[in-house]
Amino acid sequence: MAKEKKQEFVQHITPREENFSQWYTDVVTQTDLMDYTPVRGCMALKPYGNRIWELIHEQLDAMFQETGHENVSMPMLIPESLLLKEADHVEGFAPEVAWVTQGGTEPLQERMAVRPTSETIFCTMFSKWVQSWRDLPLKYNQWCSVMRWEKTTRPFLRTAEFWWQEGHTVHATAEEAEEETRTMLGIYQRFCEENLAIPVYAGQKSDKEKFAGARATYSVEAMMQDGKALQAGTSHNFGTNFAEPFEIRYLSKEGKLEYCHETSWGVSTRLIGALIMTHGDERGLRLPPKIAPYQVVILPIAAHKGGVEERCQEVYQALRKAGIRAKLDDRDNVSPGWKFNEWELKGVPLRVEIGPKDLEKGQATVARRDTFEKLALPLEGLEDALRALLDEIQQNLYRIADEFRLAHTKDVHSFEELRQQVNGGYARAMWCGDRACEDRIKEETGATSRNMPFDQTPIGDTCVCCGKKADKVMYFAKAY
Amino acid sequence: MAKEKKQEFVQHITPREENFSQWYTDVVTQTDLMDYTPVRGCMALKPYGNRIWELIHEQLDAMFQETGHENVSMPMLIPESLLLKEADHVEGFAPEVAWVTQGGTEPLQERMAVRPTSETIFCTMFSKWVQSWRDLPLKYNQWCSVMRWEKTTRPFLRTAEFWWQEGHTVHATAEEAEEETRTMLGIYQRFCEENLAIPVYAGQKSDKEKFAGARATYSVEAMMQDGKALQAGTSHNFGTNFAEPFEIRYLSKEGKLEYCHETSWGVSTRLIGALIMTHGDERGLRLPPKIAPYQVVILPIAAHKGGVEERCQEVYQALRKAGIRAKLDDRDNVSPGWKFNEWELKGVPLRVEIGPKDLEKGQATVARRDTFEKLALPLEGLEDALRALLDEIQQNLYRIADEFRLAHTKDVHSFEELRQQVNGGYARAMWCGDRACEDRIKEETGATSRNMPFDQTPIGDTCVCCGKKADKVMYFAKAY
Repeated sequence: MAKEKKQEFVQHITPREENFSQWYTDVVTQTDLMDYTPVRGCMALKPYGNRIWELIHEQLDAMFQETGHENVSMPMLIPESLLLKEADHVEGFAPEVAWVTQGGTEPLQERMAVRPTSETIFCTMFSKWVQSWRDLPLKYNQWCSVMRWEKTTRPFLRTAEFWWQEGHTVHATAEEAEEETRTMLGIYQRFCEENLAIPVYAGQKSDKEKFAGARATYSVEAMMQDGKALQAGTSHNFGTNFAEPFEIRYLSKEGKLEYCHETSWGVSTRLIGALIMTHGDERGLRLPPKIAPYQVVILPIAAHKGGVEERCQEVYQALRKAGIRAKLDDRDNVSPGWKFNEWELKGVPLRVEIGPKDLEKGQATVARRDTFEKLALPLEGLEDALRALLDEIQQNLYRIADEFRLAHTKDVHSFEELRQQVNGGYARAMWCGDRACEDRIKEETGATSRNMPFDQTPIGDTCVCCGKKADKVMYFAKAY
Repeated sequence: MAKEKKQEFVQHITPREENFSQWYTDVVTQTDLMDYTPVRGCMALKPYGNRIWELIHEQLDAMFQETGHENVSMPMLIPESLLLKEADHVEGFAPEVAWVTQGGTEPLQERMAVRPTSETIFCTMFSKWVQSWRDLPLKYNQWCSVMRWEKTTRPFLRTAEFWWQEGHTVHATAEEAEEETRTMLGIYQRFCEENLAIPVYAGQKSDKEKFAGARATYSVEAMMQDGKALQAGTSHNFGTNFAEPFEIRYLSKEGKLEYCHETSWGVSTRLIGALIMTHGDERGLRLPPKIAPYQVVILPIAAHKGGVEERCQEVYQALRKAGIRAKLDDRDNVSPGWKFNEWELKGVPLRVEIGPKDLEKGQATVARRDTFEKLALPLEGLEDALRALLDEIQQNLYRIADEFRLAHTKDVHSFEELRQQVNGGYARAMWCGDRACEDRIKEETGATSRNMPFDQTPIGDTCVCCGKKADKVMYFAKAY
C-alpha cells in the first residue's frame, strides 16, 4: 500500500477587499507564473506563465494571419540617430531607454537603444522595401521583447522588459491606414472578450494620452476588480508622421511620388496581469478555459486501489486525443487535499477526481473552478461533457466580468460625481476636449481619460470639469 | 480579356563552382529571406526567412515537449557580476559582449550584458528554484535572440544578433546530465536529418573546441556544398562547473546537500544558412518540403480563360484543407514565366500549373524543384499525389546531400593527405589528443577539429599530425 504523507497546503492570500494590491502580489508570486530576478525591473516567466503567453501568441497570431499579416524579426538594437528622426517619438521614449554604449572592448561611435518599440527601425526598412504602389500594403508583425527603463515596476503590469507583439503596416492611402487601425483594434476587442473573457471599452484616446508620434490612438480598456482601468491593447494611425522623416514613398499608379500612411498596434504580457485582476478570487487564479495551460486536471483518489491509476491514464489519453489540455497529477508525495488547493490556486477550470467509489459507479467527480460546483459525470463520453463545461465556464467568467464592469460604470454629470465614481469604477462624462480639464481631473481625482467610445451619443452638453460647452463623451478612470 | 505585361525576370546568381561564397550571398539576398540593416552586423528576417525559422521553432519545440521540456523566458540583460562567476565562461564571452551602461538619463552602477547566452541568469534562478531532490530534474528551454559583437558577419552564419533556442537543465546525478546531453544531441541529429534533410556527423568536441565552461560538448556537424563544415547544433554537459560558483544544491533523499549537474544545448538561425548551402543550386534555394513556407505554389495559366481561376481556387482550398502549405499566385502583372523563375529561386518544392489545356484533360501540370521533372497528374485526388511527391522530394534531397557528404569524407593517414582532403571535404584521422596538433593543423591547413564520432573504431594507431601514438578518431574540416 502506497504511503501518503499528510501535508498541509499552506498559502495565505490577502483578501481582495482588504488590500487589492497585496492580493495581486500574493497571487502572482504563489502561482508560479513568474519570479523576480536580479536584473532591475525584469521578471522571469516560469513555465506556467510562459505557457499562457504562448497561448496568447498562438491564438492572436492566427487572427493576424487570417487578416493577411506576416511575421518578421527586426534587430533589438536601434542606433540613436534613427530614434531621433521623429520629434514626438523621441521625446516620448528617450527618457526610458536602456543604452548600449560598448561592443566587446570598444566604445561605440554611436550609442544604441535596446528597442523600447520598433517604429524607427521598421520605418528605416520600409523606406528600402517600398517603391511602388504594387508593393503596398505591407502588413508586418513581430513577436519579441522590448525594454523601457521604468522607475517603479510590478510583475506583468509594468516591467523594464516585457514581451509583446508589435504590428507595423504601410498603406497607400489615409483611408486604408485608418481601416487597418480600426480592424486591429477590433481584433484586440474580440480576442480580449472571446479568448480572455475580458470585456473591454473600445474607443479613441485623447491627444494627451495618444502614442508618441501618432495622429490617432485607439485603445481597448479593461476594468479590474478594484474598478481601475487597464489599457489592454492599442492601435495607432500615424498618417504620414513617420513616412515623412523616414522618406517612405511610393510611385502611384498615376506615376506620382506619394508618402505612405502607416499604423502600428500591440498587446503585451500586461494581458496576463489583466487576466489575474479580472478573474482572480480569494483562492487564487481563475483562468478562462481558452487560455488555460491546463483546462482539466485529473486527480487519482486512493491511486493504489485497483484500477484507479489505469482509468486515470485512460481518461488522460482520451482528453488529450479530444484536444483538451489535460494534466494528470499522479504525484504520490502530496495528499489529494494539497492537490485540490494547488490547482485551485493555479486556476485550472476543471478538476476531475477518480477514485474507487467513482469507478464502482462508472463516473468521475468533476469540480468547477468558477462556481465550486461538484458534479458526478459518467466516464463514458466524459470528454464531450467536459468540453461543454469548459465552454460554459468561458461564458460564465465573461458574464461575471461584464456584470461587474457594467455595475461599476456610471454616467456622471458633475465634478463631484466623477470624483466619487472613479474611486471604484469608470465614469462616463461629457468633456470639452481641453487638455487643461484632463490635467485638472488627473490632479484632483487621480483619474485619467481612458478613451472616447465610438458611440458618441451625448449624455449632456457641458464639460464635467469646466462647465463649458462639450460634445465629447469620454471615459475617465484611475488606471494601471 | 486581362492584360498580361511581358516582363523579364532578371536575376543573376553566380555559379557555385565559380565562387561559392558569392553564390551564397546572391541566393540569400535575392530570395527575400533577410535584409541588411543599419545596425552593425544585425539582419532583419523578412517574412519568407522568418517563416522558415517559425517552422523550425514549431517542429523542434514539439520534440522538446515530447521529451518533457518546458519553455520559460529569461531577462535579456545580465548584470556583469553574474557573467563573472564562472571563469572559463566569462573568458569565452566577455570579448564579444554588447554592454548596456545607461538606463534612461542615468549611468548604471553596474553595467549589463545583452545576453550572449544565458547560462549565468538561468543558474542564478536555478539556485532559487532548486531545494530538494523532489524539484529535480528541471528541464527548461527558451526561444529568444542573443547578441555577440562579432567582427565580421555573414547573413545567417555569423550575425551580431541571432535567433536561437537555448535549453538549460538541472539534474541530481552526473549520469542523468550526461543522458540529457546525449538525448538532446540525438534530437538535433534527427531534426537535421528528418526535417531539414541535412545529414550530420554527431560526436564529441575536443577540449579546445568545447563551450566555455563545459566539461563536455557534443555537436552535430553538417557538410556544405563547398566541402566545409557547419556546426549545426551543440549540446553541453557542465557537470557541476556552474552549480559550484552559483551554489545550485539540492537536499538528497538521504538528507545530504549535493551539487546539481547541468546541461545546455542550442541551435540557431545558422540552420537557415545550412539549408541554403546544403540544398541550394544554380537556380536558387531548394527547400525540403517539411520546412518550406510554401510546399506547393499554384499558377493559373491564361487565368482569364473560362474556369481556370475557379479551378485554381478549388485546388488551393483542397490543398490547404489537406494540411499542405499552398500558395496561389494569382498576380496579373507578371507573366507565368516570371513566376516560374521566382518560385524556383525561392525553392518551393512543387509548382502546379493549371491552364485551359489542363482543364480539358482534367489534369494539372506539376513540376518538381529537385529534379525539374514535369508530370501530368489528374486533378481528382491531386492532394494525395502531391503529398506523396513531397515525401519523395524530402527523401531525395536527403539522399543527394548524403551522397555528397560521403563522397567528400575520407580517411586520411598523413598530414599531406589531410591537407588535401580538407580543401573540399572532411578528413577522418587518428589524433593523439594534444592541443598542439590541433593548433598546427589549424595553422597549416585552415582546418579545425570538428568532432569525435561515437564509433571510435581506430583507422590507424598514430597521430596524423605528430606521428605519436594516437587512439582518437577525429573529423577535421574547414568550417563556417
